[in-house]
Amino acid sequence: MQAPGRCCHWASLPGPSVREVASMYGTAVAVFLVILVAALQGSAPTESRLPYHIPLDPEGSLELSWNVSYAQEAIDFQLLVRRLEAGVLFGMSDRGKPENADLVVLWTDGDTAYFADAWSDQNGQIHLDPQQDYQLLQVQRTPEGLVLLFKRPFGTCDPKDYLIEDGTVHLVYGILEKPFQSLETINASGLRMGLQRVQLLKPDIPNPKLPSDTYTMEIHAPNIRIPSRETTYWCHVKELPKGFSRHHIIMYEPIVTEGNEALVHHMEVFQCPPEMDSVPYFSGPCDSETKPDNLNYCRRVLAAWALGAKAFYYPEEAGLAFGGPGSSRYLRLEVHYHNPLVKEGQHDSSGIRLYYTPTLRRFDAGIMELGLVYTPVMAIPPQETDFVLTGYCTDNCTQLALPPSGIHIFASQLHTHLAGRKVVTVLVRDGREWEIVNQDNHYSPHFQEIRMLKKIVSVHRGDVLITSCTYNTEDREQATVGGFGIMEEMCVNYVHYYPQTELELCKSAVDAGFLQEYFHLINRFNGGKEVCTCPQPSVPQQFASVPWNSFSRKVLQALYGFAPISMHCNKSWAIRFQGEWNLQPLPKVISSLGAPTPQCPPRRCPTPAGPTIISIVGDRG
Amino acid sequence: MQAPGRCCHWASLPGPSVREVASMYGTAVAVFLVILVAALQGSAPTESRLPYHIPLDPEGSLELSWNVSYAQEAIDFQLLVRRLEAGVLFGMSDRGKPENADLVVLWTDGDTAYFADAWSDQNGQIHLDPQQDYQLLQVQRTPEGLVLLFKRPFGTCDPKDYLIEDGTVHLVYGILEKPFQSLETINASGLRMGLQRVQLLKPDIPNPKLPSDTYTMEIHAPNIRIPSRETTYWCHVKELPKGFSRHHIIMYEPIVTEGNEALVHHMEVFQCPPEMDSVPYFSGPCDSETKPDNLNYCRRVLAAWALGAKAFYYPEEAGLAFGGPGSSRYLRLEVHYHNPLVKEGQHDSSGIRLYYTPTLRRFDAGIMELGLVYTPVMAIPPQETDFVLTGYCTDNCTQLALPPSGIHIFASQLHTHLAGRKVVTVLVRDGREWEIVNQDNHYSPHFQEIRMLKKIVSVHRGDVLITSCTYNTEDREQATVGGFGIMEEMCVNYVHYYPQTELELCKSAVDAGFLQEYFHLINRFNGGKEVCTCPQPSVPQQFASVPWNSFSRKVLQALYGFAPISMHCNKSWAIRFQGEWNLQPLPKVISSLGAPTPQCPPRRCPTPAGPTIISIVGDRG
Repeated sequence: MQAPGRCCHWASLPGPSVREVASMYGTAVAVFLVILVAALQGSAPTESRLPYHIPLDPEGSLELSWNVSYAQEAIDFQLLVRRLEAGVLFGMSDRGKPENADLVVLWTDGDTAYFADAWSDQNGQIHLDPQQDYQLLQVQRTPEGLVLLFKRPFGTCDPKDYLIEDGTVHLVYGILEKPFQSLETINASGLRMGLQRVQLLKPDIPNPKLPSDTYTMEIHAPNIRIPSRETTYWCHVKELPKGFSRHHIIMYEPIVTEGNEALVHHMEVFQCPPEMDSVPYFSGPCDSETKPDNLNYCRRVLAAWALGAKAFYYPEEAGLAFGGPGSSRYLRLEVHYHNPLVKEGQHDSSGIRLYYTPTLRRFDAGIMELGLVYTPVMAIPPQETDFVLTGYCTDNCTQLALPPSGIHIFASQLHTHLAGRKVVTVLVRDGREWEIVNQDNHYSPHFQEIRMLKKIVSVHRGDVLITSCTYNTEDREQATVGGFGIMEEMCVNYVHYYPQTELELCKSAVDAGFLQEYFHLINRFNGGKEVCTCPQPSVPQQFASVPWNSFSRKVLQALYGFAPISMHCNKSWAIRFQGEWNLQPLPKVISSLGAPTPQCPPRRCPTPAGPTIISIVGDRG
Repeated sequence: MQAPGRCCHWASLPGPSVREVASMYGTAVAVFLVILVAALQGSAPTESRLPYHIPLDPEGSLELSWNVSYAQEAIDFQLLVRRLEAGVLFGMSDRGKPENADLVVLWTDGDTAYFADAWSDQNGQIHLDPQQDYQLLQVQRTPEGLVLLFKRPFGTCDPKDYLIEDGTVHLVYGILEKPFQSLETINASGLRMGLQRVQLLKPDIPNPKLPSDTYTMEIHAPNIRIPSRETTYWCHVKELPKGFSRHHIIMYEPIVTEGNEALVHHMEVFQCPPEMDSVPYFSGPCDSETKPDNLNYCRRVLAAWALGAKAFYYPEEAGLAFGGPGSSRYLRLEVHYHNPLVKEGQHDSSGIRLYYTPTLRRFDAGIMELGLVYTPVMAIPPQETDFVLTGYCTDNCTQLALPPSGIHIFASQLHTHLAGRKVVTVLVRDGREWEIVNQDNHYSPHFQEIRMLKKIVSVHRGDVLITSCTYNTEDREQATVGGFGIMEEMCVNYVHYYPQTELELCKSAVDAGFLQEYFHLINRFNGGKEVCTCPQPSVPQQFASVPWNSFSRKVLQALYGFAPISMHCNKSWAIRFQGEWNLQPLPKVISSLGAPTPQCPPRRCPTPAGPTIISIVGDRG
């Protein structure tokens, strides 16, 4: 689809050395960046049909917009390339590495520009994918830059392709600075590559209307100067007006200072405990020595946002109560600035805007912790690639603590420390896995957001909730025990639900006595040498003395999968519900949900066996 | 390819009920069985190109011939159907069941005959395979019956297809007695189906020439009457002539009485121990009360044959010594008659013909046992689908017992009792898996034959040989311990090699003390209740008292994969080589061979998406 008379190559190359070529080519591109408005196939979605946006790189020179069609099980992607050099790579990989990635590549050999579905092998070497599953819809030159529009199904049944699932997706991107004779001459490991985490499959639920008596409150940094270091957690105290009565938060949204979109990584608003009657004002880095100590106790989540998320709406029958008696007047805003280019002098007033109403909704929303108790008895051996720990909320606890009509979970925030790689919570009813509450197969501790569930999950009395976390400790020499420290681990799912109940925490850990049997056995296998010679060794000391071999690893795993548990079925302030919670048997699961089988299209003849040639024609920029 | 004027349908149907149709159709087939000589595609291999033959059913009405092309990685099959009814099924499945089978189906809807690549699901329901990998080469009417010739690659990369591997293949066959409107209306579970075990991938090695001074000796049953019961092991004693000097057996072949091809399942010739100076003559069922007791000690294998095997040739540099001083003059022939139709009055003189020479070859061949010691310390929990036990021949033993130039394994016979499902022996050199000595992923204890290796495997001093057996105990309530009994288990690879050494047995078992630690732990987990209350419990008693749950199963597996072993590095008569053989560490394996990746053809457009229509034309039979 070449407009006659207006055609010029994207770049026309002279001859000599690669270096010269690259540099001249750069100039050529700058001068002749002339792009075709080419509706290649299918219909292009309009801007309004692409509701989600995220900057890919810290400079913001690559920007992704997308929509999700659950009917078609496909995503339309729009990639804006503000300053095109010799091409771009975009795609996905398990943990965001450029190797073993599923990619689309826009490149030129100097004469012709190409677009292709490709993949990188474990060495980063790029290969053409024999099955072309990214469908190019449009290439367009706009005043902002080059816009590529393409479509991809969630699953392609091509083993080289990434399966787009619920939860976190690690997007990878890269810049081609020079032409390549062919796709096979490109190695992603040697390029300027980066990653961006995002939830691609946003839930497709309509936002409830806000009532007319909705008020807003902004909690934001007071035009601070972002520190010139890679990572800053900024803490900012906000005081509610005196006599602020009980309200329901029914929605919140991010306020991101223009120009800082690529710097503001995530933000949370916490409420302090009600018994803290005064909190001094503070605005500064959370690790500052001048930060008031008691700010650390302000941990009740009111709002949480992360890059790529949009406004968070409570279901129309519920709201999060704040204000009034028994509710602290002090809030803490925490902003995570991610400044890998160490930009200086950047000012920021980002924060969160709460939408709240005095007309209380039918139900108070509540937050409940599922998963593992923070205790060292749950540990991960070192050098494991995918060790699973599991925490239980048992039928005894839900029977006792839930109202007769049950509760309804509408959102979930998964949480681990640095070794976490996957998290899933499954609802078990009558011994059968019933439905998944929330699952993230590409979980990252660096990307924790409150996610609306696609579908509200109702939990009945007597149901069981099983939360499993998968950890990677390949880079560690010692066992990683459960605990609060950053190098210790957690396995938690904070579920947001209504109506609020007294049950704040429904978690478990292996029985400590059975764990001692484990240490005894390892000790005997170890030729009678005590695993720890200390007179009263602590559990972390005992774990530190275990010789980690196939036997001690497998037996620990078998122990966690079999030994009785101690349940924490708790109200506020760690008060347990009345009942027998120690030496409880593991809940029995007699049938599993199994992995969803992707609907594969029937075998097709290879359509575009090669890359798509893009006729780079059009007006001069 | 219809010969005009001579065309008539395979069967032409009137109308009414299915029953009537089937019966009339049967008549029609008998009368009009008229088949086309149709060279459909490719070239048909001639009879001489199909060297292997096996009857499929006990009546011998279906007969399979085949050849193997290692260059093409494909097999030509020729199926002779002596009395065609309304069609046949033929194919393969993991263990010979009609469900989950990879099949070709020849069927008719009454008017037209079809041939198709199909598969049966877990309920036996037959489905057309979207990828047609059996290529029909020829359909031919012969005086003997209908002959179907078709070709299939070893591997098709179709997940519904069976992968043809080395070792045992379970062939399945079935008879269609009536027409079916379509393939999808056939259910294999309801048909007359059967199975036949065979080694399809016969090694492609030329047979060495026999020297001119080769003599033969037949050891066969003396025209006995095959008992009218399903299973008979017939024992027959043969005495070598007095003064029979030392010879080398250099080849042997089966002698199967004509007409009994489907009844004679396997045959072995054993030699008695040299110190047994007289063995009374006997010819009768091996379980007869009149059988001399000491016949049980005659266990040195001279020759072994099983259904589908051809002559066994020793490599030209080696022979199996028998005769002369130190060699018993008494041989025992064992014939396994498999008579599922309980035929009566069938006479038989089957046996084995030995080819031997007085001109001794350069090397004596030897037989060595690899795998597990026959001891109850190696046990399989009940209700396991694929529990693996592993036996080691360690570097210490091969270092001490092998000659400096090593040994050369040229054949192997795998052995387990009834729970065995897979067996593999891997050679490990310098800690790395080096090559597979022999592997059978579809091993059956009912089909044990000496198999020539495709390639001689040389074992150096310091090499390790690891033999793993996979067991299925789904139908058992108690643990299965190692031992000699039919309900106990073994894991053995009898390797045939040269030059003969003193090393007759290189096997291992877990250290008994470490197993006691396992019982102690299970005891403590069991709440202090002793796993066995007997004062001096035996290991089988201890295993019988273990409560089998996920923990006791996994810890036993972890124990076998970690605990030190006791080595049996033995000469004849259980005399150990000198050395420290107890509490030996498990050999370390730092790299694995990994599964061979099948070379998949590139994705093709679906060729014959439907079945092939066979024009059933030709002369009347």
